[in-house]
Amino acid sequence: MSTNRAVVYLRPGQVEVQSIPFPKLLDPLGRSAEHGVILRVLSTNICGSDQHMVRGRTTAPAGLVLGHEITGEVLEAGRDVETLKPGDMVSVPFNVACGRCRSCKEQNTGVCLSVNPARAGGAYGYVDMGGWIGGQAEYVMVPYADFNLLKFPDRAQAMEKIRDLTCLSDILPTGYHGAVTAGVGPGSTVYVAGAGPVGLAAAASARLLGAAVVIVGDVNPARLEHARKVGFETTDLSRDATLAEQIGQILGTPEVDSAIDAVGFEARGHGHAGAQVEAPATVLNALMEITRAAGRIGIPGLYVTQDPGAADKAAQHGALSIRFGLGWAKSHSFFTGQTPVMKYNRALMQAILWERIRIADVVGVQVIPLDEAPTGYAEFDAGAPKKFVIDPHGLLAQAA
Amino acid sequence: MSTNRAVVYLRPGQVEVQSIPFPKLLDPLGRSAEHGVILRVLSTNICGSDQHMVRGRTTAPAGLVLGHEITGEVLEAGRDVETLKPGDMVSVPFNVACGRCRSCKEQNTGVCLSVNPARAGGAYGYVDMGGWIGGQAEYVMVPYADFNLLKFPDRAQAMEKIRDLTCLSDILPTGYHGAVTAGVGPGSTVYVAGAGPVGLAAAASARLLGAAVVIVGDVNPARLEHARKVGFETTDLSRDATLAEQIGQILGTPEVDSAIDAVGFEARGHGHAGAQVEAPATVLNALMEITRAAGRIGIPGLYVTQDPGAADKAAQHGALSIRFGLGWAKSHSFFTGQTPVMKYNRALMQAILWERIRIADVVGVQVIPLDEAPTGYAEFDAGAPKKFVIDPHGLLAQAA
Amino acid sequence: MSTNRAVVYLRPGQVEVQSIPFPKLLDPLGRSAEHGVILRVLSTNICGSDQHMVRGRTTAPAGLVLGHEITGEVLEAGRDVETLKPGDMVSVPFNVACGRCRSCKEQNTGVCLSVNPARAGGAYGYVDMGGWIGGQAEYVMVPYADFNLLKFPDRAQAMEKIRDLTCLSDILPTGYHGAVTAGVGPGSTVYVAGAGPVGLAAAASARLLGAAVVIVGDVNPARLEHARKVGFETTDLSRDATLAEQIGQILGTPEVDSAIDAVGFEARGHGHAGAQVEAPATVLNALMEITRAAGRIGIPGLYVTQDPGAADKAAQHGALSIRFGLGWAKSHSFFTGQTPVMKYNRALMQAILWERIRIADVVGVQVIPLDEAPTGYAEFDAGAPKKFVIDPHGLLAQAA
Amino acid sequence: MSTNRAVVYLRPGQVEVQSIPFPKLLDPLGRSAEHGVILRVLSTNICGSDQHMVRGRTTAPAGLVLGHEITGEVLEAGRDVETLKPGDMVSVPFNVACGRCRSCKEQNTGVCLSVNPARAGGAYGYVDMGGWIGGQAEYVMVPYADFNLLKFPDRAQAMEKIRDLTCLSDILPTGYHGAVTAGVGPGSTVYVAGAGPVGLAAAASARLLGAAVVIVGDVNPARLEHARKVGFETTDLSRDATLAEQIGQILGTPEVDSAIDAVGFEARGHGHAGAQVEAPATVLNALMEITRAAGRIGIPGLYVTQDPGAADKAAQHGALSIRFGLGWAKSHSFFTGQTPVMKYNRALMQAILWERIRIADVVGVQVIPLDEAPTGYAEFDAGAPKKFVIDPHGLLAQAA
Repeated sequence: MSTNRAVVYLRPGQVEVQSIPFPKLLDPLGRSAEHGVILRVLSTNICGSDQHMVRGRTTAPAGLVLGHEITGEVLEAGRDVETLKPGDMVSVPFNVACGRCRSCKEQNTGVCLSVNPARAGGAYGYVDMGGWIGGQAEYVMVPYADFNLLKFPDRAQAMEKIRDLTCLSDILPTGYHGAVTAGVGPGSTVYVAGAGPVGLAAAASARLLGAAVVIVGDVNPARLEHARKVGFETTDLSRDATLAEQIGQILGTPEVDSAIDAVGFEARGHGHAGAQVEAPATVLNALMEITRAAGRIGIPGLYVTQDPGAADKAAQHGALSIRFGLGWAKSHSFFTGQTPVMKYNRALMQAILWERIRIADVVGVQVIPLDEAPTGYAEFDAGAPKKFVIDPHGLLAQAA
Repeated sequence: MSTNRAVVYLRPGQVEVQSIPFPKLLDPLGRSAEHGVILRVLSTNICGSDQHMVRGRTTAPAGLVLGHEITGEVLEAGRDVETLKPGDMVSVPFNVACGRCRSCKEQNTGVCLSVNPARAGGAYGYVDMGGWIGGQAEYVMVPYADFNLLKFPDRAQAMEKIRDLTCLSDILPTGYHGAVTAGVGPGSTVYVAGAGPVGLAAAASARLLGAAVVIVGDVNPARLEHARKVGFETTDLSRDATLAEQIGQILGTPEVDSAIDAVGFEARGHGHAGAQVEAPATVLNALMEITRAAGRIGIPGLYVTQDPGAADKAAQHGALSIRFGLGWAKSHSFFTGQTPVMKYNRALMQAILWERIRIADVVGVQVIPLDEAPTGYAEFDAGAPKKFVIDPHGLLAQAA
Repeated sequence: MSTNRAVVYLRPGQVEVQSIPFPKLLDPLGRSAEHGVILRVLSTNICGSDQHMVRGRTTAPAGLVLGHEITGEVLEAGRDVETLKPGDMVSVPFNVACGRCRSCKEQNTGVCLSVNPARAGGAYGYVDMGGWIGGQAEYVMVPYADFNLLKFPDRAQAMEKIRDLTCLSDILPTGYHGAVTAGVGPGSTVYVAGAGPVGLAAAASARLLGAAVVIVGDVNPARLEHARKVGFETTDLSRDATLAEQIGQILGTPEVDSAIDAVGFEARGHGHAGAQVEAPATVLNALMEITRAAGRIGIPGLYVTQDPGAADKAAQHGALSIRFGLGWAKSHSFFTGQTPVMKYNRALMQAILWERIRIADVVGVQVIPLDEAPTGYAEFDAGAPKKFVIDPHGLLAQAA
Repeated sequence: MSTNRAVVYLRPGQVEVQSIPFPKLLDPLGRSAEHGVILRVLSTNICGSDQHMVRGRTTAPAGLVLGHEITGEVLEAGRDVETLKPGDMVSVPFNVACGRCRSCKEQNTGVCLSVNPARAGGAYGYVDMGGWIGGQAEYVMVPYADFNLLKFPDRAQAMEKIRDLTCLSDILPTGYHGAVTAGVGPGSTVYVAGAGPVGLAAAASARLLGAAVVIVGDVNPARLEHARKVGFETTDLSRDATLAEQIGQILGTPEVDSAIDAVGFEARGHGHAGAQVEAPATVLNALMEITRAAGRIGIPGLYVTQDPGAADKAAQHGALSIRFGLGWAKSHSFFTGQTPVMKYNRALMQAILWERIRIADVVGVQVIPLDEAPTGYAEFDAGAPKKFVIDPHGLLAQAA
């Protein structure tokens, strides 16, 4: 039990499974963290935002242990932990949060003020997010465990639904946050930009929230086909018909009630030619066009403060050319930021356990062993309509 | 076209179909109402609250034309009507609302300040609600038509889904209001008191809102069986097991997140003996017991200011013996009143048209001709698990 | 430092200052509480709800150490405390909360699920609230200190404004919660039942929230005079003019937008005769009468599940005769329960520090030494228009 | 009574008082508008957004009658008007709204779907806002009068407070909307960009909402001096100290809870040099810098879809270079659009009538006769710290 293996970032385009130290109850600054637990990782997912690092679009250093989507079993609990004990099965919100600062007390755990000296908000295995060691590993340490962890009520039931429950650490709450902030409710018409896992999770969330119709747009034909297969309408942005026209064909009106940006800063242009070119404000500008007056736009897709790899100078400093006057003329509101997972994960767990949402099928969960993580990264980057879930101890394979 | 027939209240236990005058564009005080329309009634439902009058539990006068759940086709529009024209198919919210007072501007159309000189709030065909002529008839007048009416987008589609759309005038929004005010959302556990049409509509609404599990309680075995058939959990309140015990068997915990009172002041006691006896505060007291701390209780079930037929003196003046301290100890909040239908009906129409909710099946819609209305009243009063929808022109029968 | 003195409940009508043990970092069940701190108490207030116990209206046992309104200085911090150190000056919310349960994570710290085995919600020095030792003492232990305590930014400034800041532990947030849940905002007309400290704090909060006019009602002439002196309108409920009539004289209309019950279950009747008699539902019934349709009623006043000293049998079991039908007819909503202080205290501290509210003057703070606590209890019970603040170390007297 | 005089736009930099036709009950398309009233204008204000047209920054045609901030007396009511009669004194929301469309029913009167064939939202006397004739005139027509108009309760009281009440048509609700959408409440720290009338109204609104401290920033020394005189903190953006530094000096921290953009697209740069240059995204970018994580940014300042006079090509099409990644990293939300005045004006009227806000003094109301309107426009454009109120019939002069 004193060994550990993990997925490590090497250089743009390359990750590797390496031996790393077994976790200790210490924070990134080396201080004792008796409020933490050591988890045996049951499942840990590859996230689209990991790809930003692996593509070299960030300043992530070589050697960074990846992974912020973690589900696990408590192996050892620190002295101050009150509510958890070895054997408990838990979901880990990707945000590291202290439970004691103003942000945490106000349910804004995505911008905890204590866990990252550089800025508000921490995460596991992510550049500039506080230095917490990632969880694409056999074992990982989770601090402030009483506050952060969501315990599953029953062990057997948890293993049975683990493909769905693994989505609670990030992808499902993130899609859901997009839908909630976009104002989705019963009867809404919804457009989701992006048919990757976050987009599909947003679409599934919109359906759970009662949306009348959910349309997903992308340029990737395999992803669009998958989206249709799991029950959504689609718009193909590589076609020359505008987004508004395609929406009009579905709804009879070119505008939706609510729109969700599940793409973020690595957006590409629309239309036959545009789809080849990076155009970071494309999605935001398109959403203002197709969202009704007084509508809301949820933006779970990541936008960054610095993007050294961007095509133009302004975008390198995070400045995008946004048609803000268009949104203003339509009284839009815009909601950004890391999802505060804890605000939503208990309710979404209930929805999974009572079978109101089948998120694993919607996002295309595919379970892989730890050693195949590098292949998973590569396939995901190539646009496979899948959500790769690493199974470091082979327990999911066994359960299936 | 200058004739009209309607369901008229005669005396406790008795209604009759009579000829009544063809509607005019006049309000109950005889003033010109050029803001109104005359509707040909497509469908008009019998409501549980009609039963309060017919059972003689109110001061409704003989001769009152019944009916406040109306769906129709515009036959003639007053001079000031701008957005509607003959042939439009519309749903009529049961609240009469002016669209110009403070309440209406703030979306509280259930307590419009202008349409009822006696108190806030008006309705069609109801005692003390402003004297507006009821719509269980061939034709009816609807005032402030531009404001009040919800137009269906397509005529053929409307006729195809008319059994569901007829629920938009009252029953579905009323159940939905109960669920919304009770704080139901994705993952909620919900208890609905009452398996009559309002209870079932509340249950269906909770499901649309994403509830994890919905439990319906009643003493009527036929209604409970119907509730199970359409997919809800049930508790049988004629059994001796307490409500909390029965909920505990379903959820593993004796409390729910959200509770809805779809019974109101004619509640009966719980348990084998209690179920025979009227006990007007039973439901409220039970809901405080089984709702979690900080939970919310939505109360669409009707409570009245005067109840001459009540068993005890206090209840005759609308005073109930409520265990308020219990609710206070659990930080409950309570939401009462007539549903402001307009706040919800457009969204619920979308949910029906995109087939996200099958409300007709859930509430057990049964279409009957106008002449069978008296039988419908009697069967409904006897506890049939059905929602009777009157078809005054035989158009639904024809469409089916 | 190893001695401690505190106010102790002896029997109905009697409290005494006694020596008690110096606090330890242990919870009521004797378990280690390294998450706690020992405070030197700077100020600790007598609360109207303490009077319920002292009057013998509860099952409080002899020997109970009183006091849940505490402001203090950290003397010693447990091993797991991260954000506080000796010398920090802090306000203690009267609710004991763990910061780790569902209620706490959802900002409902008034019904924490962990700190009281008997029911949801804990408090210091209060019967049935978990057995936490009270703070009308020289020293007190506060558990889960990182989560519970609100730190004042500056020591000197804190001592300067201590008469106001002492109101942050209960009275001000409780009045504020009443106003917020009653829907008070800019331009509101507000009625507050009760001119005791909670009523005055509710009135001051309503003013801070921008209310156009705030009316306070009571039967106690000294309290009414004080209320007028600090700027509120008043209604004298010992007069024979009805409450609605008196409100009509002030506003030109007999209804207000928002109503707050700052009285609770020990209410007395209205009018010349009624004011002598206990009538536990009087306030609730009156508020439904004078609150506008669709208005909200905030109920910070305490209602209990058991009231052995009540006049009638039903009230002894917490059942009150409420004209619920009246509220229903007006679409009222009702908000009950212990105030979740943490939701509000940081913002209210800012309002005090920037001199936007002078709560000490409004509630009539009077500072007394610890030894005069018994006199303070007696005077407060006799209806003095004062809020007694105990100064156990003589530091407030010194600062003044 | 059949003559009329009004302020008319001639060409960039020039307006003139001309004779225009007396208003008729007709809409801009020449259709009968019996739902309307003819008002005798009591007061009508010059607005910063009028300046956009007069500076030639829009496509406003020569001959356009200006004026959308109108307070008046009903002279004649159309046949369908029910709640108003000649002699009533009223405030006119600047948004023209029908009261019958989805937007109006949902309180989004700023984007009414019926009154402007070109897009959502109408206004009086404004380019591209539906062609409704402006009210900087002796007489004006207001459509859908029952819905649109806010009646003052008492004529004499209204004349007494007319300098404040004249702010209800736009400036005060607009500032208030900025504050509300920015999440301002009791205890908030607030920054308002722009010390013109909208900025000052936002600041006054923040104070009414209970803000702890309100800071106003501008480059205009006269406006800053006025802001300080009426009780706000200020930051001088022509200084070289950054905005964050200046805020830090006031608050002890460089961030505020809530920020309001009361400048809009004609923003100038910050700092000594920058203040001379137009820099349309400056304010938005600065607000993201100084707003705390999870904070909200209210944007009542106008941004346009087309700005032919802009310095660079992108801005000419309404595209601004926004550091969106910065806002995203801090989980900001952004609220834009025309203020739906009706949502707020009744409450704000109450605040004025009960003297909770002295908006006329805060914004520097200066009453001028109609003939001096051209001078008023010029002085306002030159940056005078004043809000010019035109008094077309000399009634305010008389009342003073």
